[in-house]
Amino acid sequence: MGLSENATIAAIREELGEAGRSRIEVGIGDDAALWQPSRSDRSAISTDAFVDGIHFRRATTPLDRIGARAIAASVSDLAAMGARPRLATVALGVPGDFTLEDIRLLYRGIARAATEQGVAVAGGDSTASPVLSLAVTAIGEVRASHVKRRDGARLGDTIAVTGPLGASAAGLRALDDLRLLDEPLRGRAIDAYENARARVPEGRWLAGSSHVRAMIDCSDGLGRDCARLAAASGVGILLDRIPVAPEIAAVALATGENAEELALAGGEDYELIVAIATPAFAHLQRRFQKRFGRELLAVGRCDAQAGVRWWRSGSATPVDRYGWDHFEVGETQ
Amino acid sequence: MGLSENATIAAIREELGEAGRSRIEVGIGDDAALWQPSRSDRSAISTDAFVDGIHFRRATTPLDRIGARAIAASVSDLAAMGARPRLATVALGVPGDFTLEDIRLLYRGIARAATEQGVAVAGGDSTASPVLSLAVTAIGEVRASHVKRRDGARLGDTIAVTGPLGASAAGLRALDDLRLLDEPLRGRAIDAYENARARVPEGRWLAGSSHVRAMIDCSDGLGRDCARLAAASGVGILLDRIPVAPEIAAVALATGENAEELALAGGEDYELIVAIATPAFAHLQRRFQKRFGRELLAVGRCDAQAGVRWWRSGSATPVDRYGWDHFEVGETQ
Repeated sequence: MGLSENATIAAIREELGEAGRSRIEVGIGDDAALWQPSRSDRSAISTDAFVDGIHFRRATTPLDRIGARAIAASVSDLAAMGARPRLATVALGVPGDFTLEDIRLLYRGIARAATEQGVAVAGGDSTASPVLSLAVTAIGEVRASHVKRRDGARLGDTIAVTGPLGASAAGLRALDDLRLLDEPLRGRAIDAYENARARVPEGRWLAGSSHVRAMIDCSDGLGRDCARLAAASGVGILLDRIPVAPEIAAVALATGENAEELALAGGEDYELIVAIATPAFAHLQRRFQKRFGRELLAVGRCDAQAGVRWWRSGSATPVDRYGWDHFEVGETQ
Repeated sequence: MGLSENATIAAIREELGEAGRSRIEVGIGDDAALWQPSRSDRSAISTDAFVDGIHFRRATTPLDRIGARAIAASVSDLAAMGARPRLATVALGVPGDFTLEDIRLLYRGIARAATEQGVAVAGGDSTASPVLSLAVTAIGEVRASHVKRRDGARLGDTIAVTGPLGASAAGLRALDDLRLLDEPLRGRAIDAYENARARVPEGRWLAGSSHVRAMIDCSDGLGRDCARLAAASGVGILLDRIPVAPEIAAVALATGENAEELALAGGEDYELIVAIATPAFAHLQRRFQKRFGRELLAVGRCDAQAGVRWWRSGSATPVDRYGWDHFEVGETQ
């Protein structure tokens, strides 16, 4: 017995509750959802796909967390433009063994994350699929003068991140091997992975500063996302400090790996990587600390060399091999 | 050897050409794409998912046609709201055997359909996947007073469609069995399936009339989509004429099936189903004919009975069994 479309839509509607209604004039159930865009702002759109076995593992992560993470990851792209999220749609690929309770649990997580991150869920589509997959499109708005692209970094700019890196990667490792970490670090690591949040207020705040020249979110690891920012801006980046989250430091201690290497490659922390005019950095850092109670961490500097290099033990090593590529990951399975 | 993300994005960018640039301020390659929404209009969003083996068959349909059909299907939802399409994003699930040439062919079709239907492709996401899948999100704009929802039909309204039905279903049958039809009907049927176009100008024109009370696109078959419109509007629909496309009539002749039943169940023609105040129908029909050189075809009437029924051979038969459900289709595979 399969899921009927009507029962599925009814369950989705019920789980979304207010998250499916607020700020949308025509929501789930019509041909399209409607909203009134802000007159003075640009609209921003970002689409991300998540496939079981590649972006998450249904075997180890509860469905509500999978749904919540998909929302957070999509919203994070808007945060990196300085945008305020408004609504999202979800295209769901439903595997043959999925029950109505599975649909409910998944959408419970989607609704929770959507409410937390201030985005309404404006419907989408559901279809049978060989594996669980989600394609989330998030729409946001940003004042034209506040837009932060990837290509604005300049020679001499300071590269900073909005928080330490690797906690999410530590969570993924802890889920794969529950003996790897002891409590409370294991719980904190898994929580960082399962309850990742996009840095929306931080992104909007940073976007308001003319000293912030470029932003990108750290979804695929500091090395890889810095490489994207550097390539778009036509600069190189020399990293001289990798801020290591305590969770990934504990993993490194347990396995004998290098904590900084793990944090560099980690990904899915959804911190923002920011290029800031260096003369303004210290002042911006103080204001950021005051506003968010957390440090804006300098990790390196834009220079005229090619690519991203990491200054360690007295020499600069290219970071090309760190981070990951969804295609390559997919291909190896 | 797998596809690298950089090579894939470069190929997509090249194939999209102008379709990936026009009317988008920041396009493919940044965290999000930006556009300036029209100040006086509502924005409309629709997301559709397409999976190999369920919505199309890679074995029988060329990749450019698969891409083009996905765009047309998404844009059709906007047409059914009376909206003008502006941009679309594509989340692509790439199977392991896909080559860069496959990506190019798929995006060539996406670019062609996007250009034809007036929508810019604002990027998206690509990821490895067990089967080819596309999730397309289309964004459009519509004047608030022109919005046509599903729930506006009233007792006594005339139900009409913008063209005869079943040509696309005939094409699908012809692809499965090449001996089923002779030329030129075979070619015309396959063309109707592979080169389906959304009724965007017709939708916008109809949306401008206050006598048009509700619209929905005919993506899952007249029976099923009428049932959705009827349920949303709180009315019943009695169908008394099924306009049969010559291609499906020829299939029926070849197989001994009933042509009207095939046309009723067909789907994927992307004609619009329209509820029109009956006193205004004849006049609107004349104006439609003059404007589009094609007839607006009356198929039935809204009444106070439950559900959708088809008046044939002197009695009214419920049409519940016609049309199809993507979940059920998926489940039977």
